[in-house]
Amino acid sequence: MKGRPTLAVVGATGAVGAVMLQILSQRADVWGEIRLIASPRSAGRKLSVRGEEVEVAALDEAAFDGVDVAMFDVPDDVSARWAPVAAAKGVVVVDNSAAFRMDPDVPLVVPEVNAHTVRNRPRGIVANPNCTTLSMIVALGALHAEYGLRELVVSSYQAVSGSGRAGIDTLREQLSLVAGTELGTGPGDVRRAVGDRTGPFPEPVALNVVPWAGSLREDGWSSEEMTVRDESRKILGLPQLPVAVTCVRVPVVTTHSMTVHARFQGEVTVDGAQEILATAPGVVLFDNPAAGEFPTPADAVGTDPTWVGRVRRTLDDPTALELFVCGDNLRKGAALNTAQIAELVAEELA
Amino acid sequence: MKGRPTLAVVGATGAVGAVMLQILSQRADVWGEIRLIASPRSAGRKLSVRGEEVEVAALDEAAFDGVDVAMFDVPDDVSARWAPVAAAKGVVVVDNSAAFRMDPDVPLVVPEVNAHTVRNRPRGIVANPNCTTLSMIVALGALHAEYGLRELVVSSYQAVSGSGRAGIDTLREQLSLVAGTELGTGPGDVRRAVGDRTGPFPEPVALNVVPWAGSLREDGWSSEEMTVRDESRKILGLPQLPVAVTCVRVPVVTTHSMTVHARFQGEVTVDGAQEILATAPGVVLFDNPAAGEFPTPADAVGTDPTWVGRVRRTLDDPTALELFVCGDNLRKGAALNTAQIAELVAEELA
Ligand SMILES: NC(=O)c1ccc[n+]([C@@H]2O[C@H](COP(=O)([O-])OP(=O)(O)OC[C@H]3O[C@@H](n4cnc5c(N)ncnc54)[C@H](OP(=O)(O)O)[C@@H]3O)[C@@H](O)[C@H]2O)c1
Ligand SMILES: NC(=O)c1ccc[n+]([C@@H]2O[C@H](COP(=O)([O-])OP(=O)(O)OC[C@H]3O[C@@H](n4cnc5c(N)ncnc54)[C@H](OP(=O)(O)O)[C@@H]3O)[C@@H](O)[C@H]2O)c1
Repeated sequence: MKGRPTLAVVGATGAVGAVMLQILSQRADVWGEIRLIASPRSAGRKLSVRGEEVEVAALDEAAFDGVDVAMFDVPDDVSARWAPVAAAKGVVVVDNSAAFRMDPDVPLVVPEVNAHTVRNRPRGIVANPNCTTLSMIVALGALHAEYGLRELVVSSYQAVSGSGRAGIDTLREQLSLVAGTELGTGPGDVRRAVGDRTGPFPEPVALNVVPWAGSLREDGWSSEEMTVRDESRKILGLPQLPVAVTCVRVPVVTTHSMTVHARFQGEVTVDGAQEILATAPGVVLFDNPAAGEFPTPADAVGTDPTWVGRVRRTLDDPTALELFVCGDNLRKGAALNTAQIAELVAEELA
Repeated sequence: MKGRPTLAVVGATGAVGAVMLQILSQRADVWGEIRLIASPRSAGRKLSVRGEEVEVAALDEAAFDGVDVAMFDVPDDVSARWAPVAAAKGVVVVDNSAAFRMDPDVPLVVPEVNAHTVRNRPRGIVANPNCTTLSMIVALGALHAEYGLRELVVSSYQAVSGSGRAGIDTLREQLSLVAGTELGTGPGDVRRAVGDRTGPFPEPVALNVVPWAGSLREDGWSSEEMTVRDESRKILGLPQLPVAVTCVRVPVVTTHSMTVHARFQGEVTVDGAQEILATAPGVVLFDNPAAGEFPTPADAVGTDPTWVGRVRRTLDDPTALELFVCGDNLRKGAALNTAQIAELVAEELA
């Protein structure tokens, strides 16, 4: 290829799309033309990327003429329909929806963990993992490379922006209803105050935690819990890894947190684990409780890496570690990882 | 003994004391005289219990004259000093502080789980467990009795009232600062808005989750995490039980929640576990995700039982279950359990 590749951002007007345009502006030298695409509703709007105003085009087949790489940040059904159309025209698609993640002919890529899988894409499509998986997987990938994972038990503390703009607006509206009140001490008092203003969540999320994300799958599991299990196995290349997951929504705007109980093939040490994490690309070790240092969403939000702290060896099992992990679900959890995958493809095409 | 026993409530003016007076008022026929005791600061104040105004007495040795049972809802150091004084006068002390919980000569009692241990109290003192342990242990005790526990991995979602009145006030102040703003999306924006108004917590708790409770113990563990492990083992009578714990504070006023991964001696079934939980005293099974039923703090707050939902069999281990559990940390987590223990003693004395 001569010159820098042409990129299309499909879904440029969405929540993930907005963060993507910021990230692309910070990495100005990778791409030649950047084409912005959304639904016909947005055609003609102008958005700023790399300091220039770019007009949004409506999604159709012609929009992919001359495009080398297309990022899809659109709903599952839009990806399912249009990613194959773009791929058929020779475009490499990097898809952020759930449409292709578990397709055996589509690699599910986290560059720090399994970059090599990006080249094996028989359908011309590469998938980006779910934001909950992504908030922990870089740290786990680094530990797995050294120690060999045998089992995971994880619990999530998921931010409302995992449900997009609607999730953020819902929490903010509910907070306005409960701030300055004595709510939160009587049975049902928060529910009565919130009424039907629960937005995308099944229960009030202000002054509450909600053990549900996604839709109902078999045997009482939520789709989000199954996703974290299935995607972790695929990314780590451990199709039989035992993974127990409970997903819980918390009143945080952005940044998913997880507690992780990770069992390995042999004995581990805290010093060893801290050294691995301190030097792993894409990870920040923030782990000194004596100095008040442990990660929280308030630290990690708006930043690129996975923050890891509270590293402890399980007291009753010398082969296991306990961790607390935070990752911005809109950056590494979505736009940043997609951008990193697209850059791997751009290097390969160069 | 003739007539109903005399009860002293030491710490009647505190957060736990206030809930205790409500609970005592609902169980009006157990006690004869109820004497209210606090620091000299409160002597002469009048508080209402069983519909009567009772004057608060200052804590001294004479305050225990004629008392049969004394509940201590006071700081650890006050219990450590005064519980033995009361016991030496023949009073049975039920202590809600951490001062005696791990003393091998002091039973640690949850009436639904180990009521029989209350009679074996060589020091004349019975201890009430920590609120985080109590928010899950009734449900786990019921499952253990049937299946035999082999391992626990738990993560907490702890309410701010676990840090008393100061915790509640801190969350409410912080919520007033963040409600109606766009905070929660930029690095450090919540921290800057909250400033040093973090109260008893090491980090802002509004729009955040904080993986820390208590003080620093060895090897990076928090005292709260060690407490949950040590107390669960003692209450269940399983001194070698492997227990992995991570404690996290969340912006909820009252009611602690926990995710629990529990491994048992043999195969378990969801139907079997649900049946055990549905019939266990002190437990409410609220577990029908298809109908939107799973427990949240907004449901459990102000109620007596432990709420259990999201019961699933671990996909990769037929001997393990995943649960989500909620319990009011001021009721069953403190005052209610203390009242139940005191009633066991009252029956024995009768
Ligand atoms: N939020 C997260 O944390 C997160 C994390 C990882 C992955 N994801 C995934 O990323 C994708 C986008 O999520 P989001 O939160 O950014 O959603 P969003 O805010 O609702 O944005 C949706 C985008 O898709 C476009 N779109 C919708 N229907 C279209 C159509 N028929 N043709 C062309 N474009 C269409 C929209 O364009 P218009 O503005 O013109 O309607 C908009 O640009 C989803 O698959 C989501 O699951 C989200
Ligand atoms: N909050 C919870 O969720 C929870 C749960 C389980 C157990 N606990 C334990 O229960 C105990 C009480 O907690 P709390 O949250 O109710 O605390 P609190 O609100 O601070 O109340 C403390 C009580 O102790 C009294 N007191 C303090 N110093 C005293 C002294 N020198 N002599 C006599 N009385 C004294 C106070 O009386 P004055 O009003 O006169 O100062 C007040 O009645 C603590 O040990 C705590 O760890 C709390």
